[in-house]
Amino acid sequence: MAPETPFPGDPDDSREAIMRATYCALKQYGYAGLSIQRIADEADLSKSTFYHHYDDKHDLLTSFVDFILAEFTRVFSLEAGDGPEANLRTFVRLILDPTTAEKVSEESPASTVLGTYVELRAQAVQDETIREKFTEVDRSFEDQIAEIVENGVASGVFRDVDPEQTATFVSTLVAGQTFRQSTRDDDPSEAVLAAFDDYVRESLLRDDA
Amino acid sequence: MAPETPFPGDPDDSREAIMRATYCALKQYGYAGLSIQRIADEADLSKSTFYHHYDDKHDLLTSFVDFILAEFTRVFSLEAGDGPEANLRTFVRLILDPTTAEKVSEESPASTVLGTYVELRAQAVQDETIREKFTEVDRSFEDQIAEIVENGVASGVFRDVDPEQTATFVSTLVAGQTFRQSTRDDDPSEAVLAAFDDYVRESLLRDDA
Repeated sequence: MAPETPFPGDPDDSREAIMRATYCALKQYGYAGLSIQRIADEADLSKSTFYHHYDDKHDLLTSFVDFILAEFTRVFSLEAGDGPEANLRTFVRLILDPTTAEKVSEESPASTVLGTYVELRAQAVQDETIREKFTEVDRSFEDQIAEIVENGVASGVFRDVDPEQTATFVSTLVAGQTFRQSTRDDDPSEAVLAAFDDYVRESLLRDDA
Repeated sequence: MAPETPFPGDPDDSREAIMRATYCALKQYGYAGLSIQRIADEADLSKSTFYHHYDDKHDLLTSFVDFILAEFTRVFSLEAGDGPEANLRTFVRLILDPTTAEKVSEESPASTVLGTYVELRAQAVQDETIREKFTEVDRSFEDQIAEIVENGVASGVFRDVDPEQTATFVSTLVAGQTFRQSTRDDDPSEAVLAAFDDYVRESLLRDDA
């Protein structure tokens, strides 16, 4: 397996080894170049072991989306805890901050984890099962953000905003930066993060907070 | 050619006929199913006429991105003119408002013009030429938004915000909604537009405006 995976420790089982190998193969070959053979090679497993766990590439990819979502939630739960404002910023920065992204990959935009995400998600335009999966992913993200905002409103740190609407707005912004960053030459994330800080101050925080 | 194209009148020349046919073929078959033969059939032109204008599929697609950008700019210039706040809302609603989107296509999410845009743009993750093209598209959008914001600041309607940073924020939000809307089952655009209105009021408009 390639040395630069962002996952801690050794995989627990062949299912997890396949997930990590999928991540590495996607990074290296992109969505179009992904094949079961390459994943099996990367995981050091036979194709028959692969088919013991997954029906086909499609089945693999929807499981892979769950795996990435669980990874994100795990990392976020490790970093969260300093109150609603800090938690909201942490959530957004974990995805968008270039210094966090660098920890995952120091390569060209083409091979970052966000690029992999964009390639996978774009399949949802044509593929109903993948579309359902990403609808689920969005809802999970939005629920997590709405909970942070709700806590912020309840504790008087945030104004009396609608948590769901705010969560939709923030998720959309994060999705936009993910989409743009992986599909353009430069990286506008500094301006987006600065504007997000202004948004939190002007639109979310109570004036006396 | 399919009846439901969003372009007014007849095409001026075979180049424009090919652009319209590309739009229809992308809507119908998606990026993966796009072929020169299908475009030629759709435009009622021979493949040799096609190759007289374009080197290959790649050359076609970068021209197509220019064509779509010019179309958007044309429609926006027709709708703009009622001051910075209205112009900013019009710019965003032209892309995101479901009632505007319906004018273009009343079909499933898979075949909307935004879905076509997402499929095309996702190619930029792996393809440097397409990445350059979309960087150009983003800059053109951002320049147009920054100009609206600059006018708003100059005329005292908007606060003294940074026009470039605001343009990046708004463009990112629009890209996020485009990306999400075409790749999930439901359409969260109402919540996004409501939150955008709040953002304009809380973060952009002067308190006394």
